[in-house]
Amino acid sequence: MNKRLIVPSLAAAVAMTAAPAYAVDAETAYILNSFSFLINGVLVMFMAAGFAMLESGLVRSKNTATICLKNITLYSIAGIMFYIVGYNLMYMDVSGYIGTFMPWSADDSAALAETGANFDAGYSASSDWFFQMVFVATAASIVSGTVAERIKLWPFLIFTVVLTAFIYPIQGSWTWGGGWLTEMGFADFAGSSIVHSVGGWAALTGAIILGARKGKYGADGSVHPIPGANLPLATLGTFILWLGWFGFNGGSVLALGSAGDAIAMANVFANTNVAAAGGVVAAVILTQVVYKKVDLSMALNGAIGGLVSITAGPDTPTLGSAMLIGAIGGAIVVFAVPLLDKLKIDDVVGAIPAHLLCGIWGTMAVPITNADASFVTQLIGVVGIGAFVIVASAIVWMVLKFTIGLRADEETEDSGLDKVELGLEAYPEFGRGAHSI
Amino acid sequence: MNKRLIVPSLAAAVAMTAAPAYAVDAETAYILNSFSFLINGVLVMFMAAGFAMLESGLVRSKNTATICLKNITLYSIAGIMFYIVGYNLMYMDVSGYIGTFMPWSADDSAALAETGANFDAGYSASSDWFFQMVFVATAASIVSGTVAERIKLWPFLIFTVVLTAFIYPIQGSWTWGGGWLTEMGFADFAGSSIVHSVGGWAALTGAIILGARKGKYGADGSVHPIPGANLPLATLGTFILWLGWFGFNGGSVLALGSAGDAIAMANVFANTNVAAAGGVVAAVILTQVVYKKVDLSMALNGAIGGLVSITAGPDTPTLGSAMLIGAIGGAIVVFAVPLLDKLKIDDVVGAIPAHLLCGIWGTMAVPITNADASFVTQLIGVVGIGAFVIVASAIVWMVLKFTIGLRADEETEDSGLDKVELGLEAYPEFGRGAHSI
Amino acid sequence: MNKRLIVPSLAAAVAMTAAPAYAVDAETAYILNSFSFLINGVLVMFMAAGFAMLESGLVRSKNTATICLKNITLYSIAGIMFYIVGYNLMYMDVSGYIGTFMPWSADDSAALAETGANFDAGYSASSDWFFQMVFVATAASIVSGTVAERIKLWPFLIFTVVLTAFIYPIQGSWTWGGGWLTEMGFADFAGSSIVHSVGGWAALTGAIILGARKGKYGADGSVHPIPGANLPLATLGTFILWLGWFGFNGGSVLALGSAGDAIAMANVFANTNVAAAGGVVAAVILTQVVYKKVDLSMALNGAIGGLVSITAGPDTPTLGSAMLIGAIGGAIVVFAVPLLDKLKIDDVVGAIPAHLLCGIWGTMAVPITNADASFVTQLIGVVGIGAFVIVASAIVWMVLKFTIGLRADEETEDSGLDKVELGLEAYPEFGRGAHSI
Repeated sequence: MNKRLIVPSLAAAVAMTAAPAYAVDAETAYILNSFSFLINGVLVMFMAAGFAMLESGLVRSKNTATICLKNITLYSIAGIMFYIVGYNLMYMDVSGYIGTFMPWSADDSAALAETGANFDAGYSASSDWFFQMVFVATAASIVSGTVAERIKLWPFLIFTVVLTAFIYPIQGSWTWGGGWLTEMGFADFAGSSIVHSVGGWAALTGAIILGARKGKYGADGSVHPIPGANLPLATLGTFILWLGWFGFNGGSVLALGSAGDAIAMANVFANTNVAAAGGVVAAVILTQVVYKKVDLSMALNGAIGGLVSITAGPDTPTLGSAMLIGAIGGAIVVFAVPLLDKLKIDDVVGAIPAHLLCGIWGTMAVPITNADASFVTQLIGVVGIGAFVIVASAIVWMVLKFTIGLRADEETEDSGLDKVELGLEAYPEFGRGAHSI
Repeated sequence: MNKRLIVPSLAAAVAMTAAPAYAVDAETAYILNSFSFLINGVLVMFMAAGFAMLESGLVRSKNTATICLKNITLYSIAGIMFYIVGYNLMYMDVSGYIGTFMPWSADDSAALAETGANFDAGYSASSDWFFQMVFVATAASIVSGTVAERIKLWPFLIFTVVLTAFIYPIQGSWTWGGGWLTEMGFADFAGSSIVHSVGGWAALTGAIILGARKGKYGADGSVHPIPGANLPLATLGTFILWLGWFGFNGGSVLALGSAGDAIAMANVFANTNVAAAGGVVAAVILTQVVYKKVDLSMALNGAIGGLVSITAGPDTPTLGSAMLIGAIGGAIVVFAVPLLDKLKIDDVVGAIPAHLLCGIWGTMAVPITNADASFVTQLIGVVGIGAFVIVASAIVWMVLKFTIGLRADEETEDSGLDKVELGLEAYPEFGRGAHSI
Repeated sequence: MNKRLIVPSLAAAVAMTAAPAYAVDAETAYILNSFSFLINGVLVMFMAAGFAMLESGLVRSKNTATICLKNITLYSIAGIMFYIVGYNLMYMDVSGYIGTFMPWSADDSAALAETGANFDAGYSASSDWFFQMVFVATAASIVSGTVAERIKLWPFLIFTVVLTAFIYPIQGSWTWGGGWLTEMGFADFAGSSIVHSVGGWAALTGAIILGARKGKYGADGSVHPIPGANLPLATLGTFILWLGWFGFNGGSVLALGSAGDAIAMANVFANTNVAAAGGVVAAVILTQVVYKKVDLSMALNGAIGGLVSITAGPDTPTLGSAMLIGAIGGAIVVFAVPLLDKLKIDDVVGAIPAHLLCGIWGTMAVPITNADASFVTQLIGVVGIGAFVIVASAIVWMVLKFTIGLRADEETEDSGLDKVELGLEAYPEFGRGAHSI
């Protein structure tokens, strides 16, 4: 049973069929609920471009074309696997449609027009499908950045198939599918844990199993930063993610059929924005104070950290609380990036601090402003989801490692994945400067 | 008579003024229909940026600024010419407004508020105008990529004037203007033929008349690939096109005033996405199998091929059928690109396979899932539109060739259009590497 | 009293509670009004990315990372300062909420559901807050481009704090807050003066106080153009701004709760587009005629000039008038850019012609098509806003200059702000070509 999709406004709207003249009629509510899924879903879809640009900007030019290919392919795989398997696994009451899923048929439509009976659903099934589909793609996008520059193409794509068809939907069913976490009262409004920490755990497991890029960590414990090749693209990617996050969090109100829905969505938009702003400002100030230089990539990850932090509960905080929740997310990014380097975990784009650690922080922060949530339940959710994703993705990574192999050989890593795996270059005309490695 | 714009939901909505309490009232339907045109139209507008980035990424750096200029100028010309001439030609019942088009006036507004009489139209005339205008811009965008790197700026812009003022609207009137193709039952939901094949035919004619770029084809029949200068930008462009396509196909439901409209739009969104995903995955797998390397530019064009393929009929397939229709589009791209090279037709960005061939495929595929369409009528539409556009655009290209000249001289082609035509460089600081030609 | 937000449609909608069956009910109007703020606001938010890309493309590569950092940080500061101080200053009837702003509470929501009483407001307070917040960010974005490549990071950020917390809101309160300019009848629909000229005046003042970049003007009066490093990014930025402008102008209808609102919004969308198109075509033709070469950066600024020009009155012109208003904006850009160089005012991205001069032109052009506006009142508004912003921002710039210092030292300017202030490079791998300075 899809708990995520009990639309309170709809019950209200249906009840209002005999209500005063100010009330939304059931068909209008149905349209607005569906349109909200579509428009907010389109914003989330565009996050795939945001991840592609962020990662393109933060890898070296010799691996840029490969990361572009991975991003457009993983988005495609996510859509297909969620259709074939994932949606069904996640929302267990939808069964038997594999290969024939098309909720709209002439019959349904006719029935709707005549009786209005199907308005009980509250929204078009396809609009819900579309909105849920773009979420699984987001989870998959998180992984590609962390494991970039040394993972082979096909093992990565196979991992994406398993992640989007099984790992994400199974844990998703625990909460949004109405499973045991929902029954315990676990609160994760738009997916700090269910989407972002899932991607983060899978990325962390992959990074550990793959090992670091050649030359990143010296035998003497030194850390050699490997700068990204195109920072304006990384900036653009961050702005696109920020844009898409309005759909991610705002659409997770899951309805627009009542004034209460509109108010909730507006609060979510405002809180989402100010949390990201808090994350940026915290990262800018902290890098100035700690490193004496402001770090652009920290500022970008600060925005993402702020956004992930507010995602579990963007509906209840005031603007001030949301700003602080986001600012703490930005601080987590600033302090966790060097910590990972100490652990020699090589996270190319900084996805583990931004998506995993801020995802945990955001989930644990919900009870601060939401009286219906409890710290214990939130912790159970964080640990439960984490344990499952770590074990499941470790198994997949290890199977891939010991069958077709995960990691590109040294020569490929030196010359770049683009040349070896794709046979082309991302920027064939731009001469290599002194910093190119 | 504008057949495209008979809004079924509106009739229903008007009829529902005495209907049960679940029904949408006529004014709400009017607002939602108009808002759908605007929001979906904005997504389509952004496709101009998608084409600009795709083409910027796939040309050489010495011609990049010129392709940027062409793209922003052609979008501007399309808007102006469609206003001055095109809309009138296409939707013949709108007459006499040249230079004074502004459907909204104080009177109309007052009349609306008092009587609701104008609700019969179902949507704001300007919102419809906006939505149709962004479509003609798309057709024009397709041409610029194919003929890039050797066509002179001004002849190209003049061609764009004729294409957007006359060629596109005249053939568009045959179907969406309620002309002979509509009367025959030709089905092209959002323009696989009417938009994409039109751009593709004009591009093909131009590519043949212009000839290939210097150095592309050896005298011995050899083909020398000329790689694009900036593949992340091409990737971004593809993602933007994918984003815009939700508006392109979804907005072509042409209404949002009933639950049936919302359901139709949601199905179109879901099918559009999975068709693109199918195109990507097909191109990735096929290039791996055929060439032993995955080709990023093929994957990008696979997405576009999948999108074009579903555009003629995104409303009737199941998700599974839509995925297959898109996958066949991706396969067409993979196999047609080398075929064009055999014919020595130099298509810089691969627009002919993606827009023309997939446009034909998509149009012919409609009857597979839509019982109201017939293969014969679809074929008549494809051939009729093709014949007209080939002849009309060949005449324009030839007149330009023999008057002001179409093709840049050899020296300009060598040094790049940017330096000669614009007097600047797209990337003045990035040193030229060994691959720069 | 917030004059900008008296929503005429709402009064109508409320009145319609006993009205005919075609009328929008009050709750539906409330939802649509709020949703319009959110969706149009999201488009405006994305303009921050547009400015970031436009400016990234038009500065030299050695200052690119810094301009990226400034853009994401200024957007963040704008959101936070507008929350803490600005909104309150601008819309004076909202008081006492600092730190606790969250219009939505369980009580309000319950009250809404039961009585509908709060529908009188017409829209969610958070949705309005969000929409107004993205406007202040736009004003701040304009400044960063003009003063790029020689201003130090922190003084710029401090200026942004003052601009978004005090300067913008104070003058904004004069019109949109219901102050003296509104009482005089000053007409500025979406902010040609209130947003764009404010950014432009602050930029002009800053450019004069900072002085020109080293090497831009020779002692002999010669002008040395300093080309931007990445023109496709600048093109992308312009397209993103164009996209966002539909939200900027369209959302400024401030309502979507009646057919009249929908018609107004549609006209605004159509006029906004054709004005930008007029600006591009004018700039393309004029640069060809005057300089014998078409100038891409002029074409891009022509689009922006056209957009700024229509912003004060996008609701009243016909499409033809809107096109001409935009075309004059494009012409202003072409002729003002060399004029500024004669005055040795170094405006790195051309923001002063596009935002300030076209902002003035657009404001003065309102009475041509809007009988309710008068030239005298428009002039008073232009001068009043200009005088205030010049004085206020000059004070802030001067205080910064004589305390922490405004301008980077010569060595930093030579080696680039990126290396000195951020300790990194935007494009570390792309070898420096001959044109790099």
